Amino acid sequence: MTQEAIFEVIDKDVCGRIGRIYTKHGKIETPAILPVVNPLKAIVRPNEIKSIGFDAIATNAYIVSRNVERLGGKRSIHETLGFNGPVMTDSGAYQLLTYGKVDVSPEEIIRFQEEVDSDIAVILDVPTGLTVDRDEALKSVEETLRRAKLCLSIRNNERGTLWVGPVQGGVHTDLVAYSSREISNLDYHIHALGSPVKLMEEYEYSTLVDMIVAAKTNMPLSRPLHLFGAGHPSMLALAVALGCDLFDTALYALFARSNRYVTPYWTFKLENLRELPCECPICSKISTRDLLEMPQEERERELALHNLYVLAREIKIIKQSISEGRLWELLENRCRSHPRLYLALRKLKDHEKLLEKCDPVTKGRLRGVFIYDDVSLSRPEVVRHRVRLLSRYKPPENRWLLLLPEPAKKPFHKDRWVKRLTNSLARCQAESRVHICFYTPSFGLVPIELDETHPLSQFESACGFVNGRGQIVGVLSEYLQSAPKSYDVVIIGAFNKLADLACDMKGACLKANRKVLLAYGSNYGELVRELLKLVKEIGQVDRTH
Amino acid sequence: MTQEAIFEVIDKDVCGRIGRIYTKHGKIETPAILPVVNPLKAIVRPNEIKSIGFDAIATNAYIVSRNVERLGGKRSIHETLGFNGPVMTDSGAYQLLTYGKVDVSPEEIIRFQEEVDSDIAVILDVPTGLTVDRDEALKSVEETLRRAKLCLSIRNNERGTLWVGPVQGGVHTDLVAYSSREISNLDYHIHALGSPVKLMEEYEYSTLVDMIVAAKTNMPLSRPLHLFGAGHPSMLALAVALGCDLFDTALYALFARSNRYVTPYWTFKLENLRELPCECPICSKISTRDLLEMPQEERERELALHNLYVLAREIKIIKQSISEGRLWELLENRCRSHPRLYLALRKLKDHEKLLEKCDPVTKGRLRGVFIYDDVSLSRPEVVRHRVRLLSRYKPPENRWLLLLPEPAKKPFHKDRWVKRLTNSLARCQAESRVHICFYTPSFGLVPIELDETHPLSQFESACGFVNGRGQIVGVLSEYLQSAPKSYDVVIIGAFNKLADLACDMKGACLKANRKVLLAYGSNYGELVRELLKLVKEIGQVDRTH
Repeated sequence: MTQEAIFEVIDKDVCGRIGRIYTKHGKIETPAILPVVNPLKAIVRPNEIKSIGFDAIATNAYIVSRNVERLGGKRSIHETLGFNGPVMTDSGAYQLLTYGKVDVSPEEIIRFQEEVDSDIAVILDVPTGLTVDRDEALKSVEETLRRAKLCLSIRNNERGTLWVGPVQGGVHTDLVAYSSREISNLDYHIHALGSPVKLMEEYEYSTLVDMIVAAKTNMPLSRPLHLFGAGHPSMLALAVALGCDLFDTALYALFARSNRYVTPYWTFKLENLRELPCECPICSKISTRDLLEMPQEERERELALHNLYVLAREIKIIKQSISEGRLWELLENRCRSHPRLYLALRKLKDHEKLLEKCDPVTKGRLRGVFIYDDVSLSRPEVVRHRVRLLSRYKPPENRWLLLLPEPAKKPFHKDRWVKRLTNSLARCQAESRVHICFYTPSFGLVPIELDETHPLSQFESACGFVNGRGQIVGVLSEYLQSAPKSYDVVIIGAFNKLADLACDMKGACLKANRKVLLAYGSNYGELVRELLKLVKEIGQVDRTH
Repeated sequence: MTQEAIFEVIDKDVCGRIGRIYTKHGKIETPAILPVVNPLKAIVRPNEIKSIGFDAIATNAYIVSRNVERLGGKRSIHETLGFNGPVMTDSGAYQLLTYGKVDVSPEEIIRFQEEVDSDIAVILDVPTGLTVDRDEALKSVEETLRRAKLCLSIRNNERGTLWVGPVQGGVHTDLVAYSSREISNLDYHIHALGSPVKLMEEYEYSTLVDMIVAAKTNMPLSRPLHLFGAGHPSMLALAVALGCDLFDTALYALFARSNRYVTPYWTFKLENLRELPCECPICSKISTRDLLEMPQEERERELALHNLYVLAREIKIIKQSISEGRLWELLENRCRSHPRLYLALRKLKDHEKLLEKCDPVTKGRLRGVFIYDDVSLSRPEVVRHRVRLLSRYKPPENRWLLLLPEPAKKPFHKDRWVKRLTNSLARCQAESRVHICFYTPSFGLVPIELDETHPLSQFESACGFVNGRGQIVGVLSEYLQSAPKSYDVVIIGAFNKLADLACDMKGACLKANRKVLLAYGSNYGELVRELLKLVKEIGQVDRTH
């Protein structure tokens, strides 16, 4: 099987993608959550899970292997679970992480997973956990790699099982990177990032971001990435945006056991709910009180079903967001469910260039982009403009660089005041000497020739000049480095209330050895009049030279 | 009827509340949306609307009055609509706003609403609309007031109709305030804010915030406030947090007509939806394609039902958030659905003192508060701490004021490094001379004696020292104004990386004529050691004086 026959990507946004994984028991559309089914006692049957909207399920091959008699003898995992779709089996590594040891050898569990006809199988890796001891972490990485090589030598490729090569390293991101590089050199179909469960329990999402990035950037994009043990619906959009394609979770059932009611952003304690804020088939027929008065087992089942509906809905919304190119906007919403998740969103600034590279330049339908505050300035469309402006755009050879604040109308050059200015410049034959750039809190600098490029006139921004000051001054400084030396005069047009910003911009120009002239106005009309006066004056000076 | 018999408030959060309005056809739990039913052609029947979770509906008495024959003769509005619950009737003012005139007199429509036994009736007010002409706006306010007085003189109080006195004034908030003051002096049961529809269509939510605040602050809290023609689920939490109790909307049906599919944050075009991201009874049985292939009328109905389910769910979530004291947190989430809504959220800073006053000091269950960034610093719990610290707290009479950065542990005084410091101070008998305050980006300043007061050790914050600098320096400056003059020495303990902040704090102290000593450390342990050295030194100097 070629990798293309196993996994195809059909849509992309940020580093997230909609894809299809082909297994011998059918197709899985990704991003996908595989609800974990306890083989000994499933509170929701696999076929019910499927009917809620999940293509595949996950179960634990180790538990199955230890309970073969009880489960009616050794049969295919599909027969054992009564489910004919794709089944992923884990190998006992979770038990290793939790209890420190398992009662099975790496070889044994590889063979067992093949024998029970698992669609997606995992080697018995050694989870790093959250240990801070680097040597110990490295040991778990090396041992996992050794076992991964062992698997290659004994697995039966004829069986059509998709093998998962886990990445370890824990919070040591250099080890995660090493682990990812090494394991992706081996012939695995899918990779997985281990050890995040504890991190997620402790809301350490920022660390998780760094771990996912370290793993993702060191493996080929053609292999799906699984995140073990995730997760809560509120963090799925973030993980998907970083490039995770698969998730397995028992949270729907574990939360149900402790009366926790999941929503896309918060988890509520059932006893605190006035009403059930959901219209899924469970919640639309019962009330909080009904649930509380049910026998424990029945309530657990109903809550588990509700939790599954919420997870299924979240995956649909994530896919819809990818297909509309607004996954970043979903992130901004979802990462407001907990301050630690918000810190993880802010962390994306550290990885903004990577996200920009992943993000497809052309998307199906062009939408305007929403910009809220400085966090939004890390979204790929914004970063891309900066990167391209500074690396690919060749500013025209003019004499003056004229910097104007972003006008009210988009595209900027069609604003009535800007038109008045450009017309007047044309009349006094100054046009060819002037290179006009708009400074904007959202994009830094926008040369007038580019202002119709998407999304430079298709955006809605709440980011004001105060929040965007760093962005503007930063881009201007870099721009002046690459701009022709012929721009020896920079004219800054600013509103009176933007004096601080104009001052910082002036500083950036002086540092780049340019002369600076400032013109102020209380509105665009006044500013344009001031600028025209200034242009006329320096035009006369110019001619006398 | 006393006002208490008409409206009772059972729970509060920010300026939002859960309440009950008692009408002659039953109770309405607020906040409530009253879906607008077209009396001539209801695409969803009133009883279906009720079964989705709405207590009451709204309809247009003007249209009914013009179509009495067609509607089977003059009967009660409940018979006409086939609905036995509370019905609110509007008077034709919307038609007046849209078409410029209506074919009915103010007296006629008052009598008509009584005759058809309306539960909640509205006088024929004159909507200001979005006119910028102040004189015209004032005219609409005065004419509305005149008609409101007319209604008082002719309405039949025996009928038990609840009368709505509309507030006009449009974008002229001083006129809104005047209108609200005047009309709430009259004997009305409910008030309503007119003219927001156009604003909402144009996403002018910031203006809407100012209008609602102007209306709300000038009427008694005992009267429910209705917002005409709202709204989209994404803006409901905001309107409720500002004190709106009732909404009427035809959006579920209007959006359905143009194939618009509502979610709590975004509206999607049906043809762009990959899958239906919802599990309501409609969406759980059909697909996007099914919907697109239906005859127009059937599709419209199904979409309208879905849209109603989403509105009902949003109201449940808002009520749940009120009852948990986290309505502000819901706002932060919902206002990320559009940058203009986010600007409206930022606008709440202008009204933070009002929101703090409305917000109940004690809530049912104490929760920790989530703080994301500087926007969260306008939430009532944060503002309240500042207000009370500066107006009610009496700092102890000491010699030194010691400012420490927020430590890792909460409550702050239980942090190991803080304990080590206070123990050492006690040993060298300096304790009684030192007043310790923590500076924190989230709350500004926290005196050590108060650090167990809710929520000063029950919060989760993503707001760093950079974002919170203004808050800290601002509170410190005010604190020093009210603090005893005996604090003639301020000792600032800071981390090396917070030098900028420490410098600003020093400036605030010097401005208040205090001596300042600075101590730095790269972590809390080092800082404490430095501080102890400093205290010892100045202690010796002290004794020699």
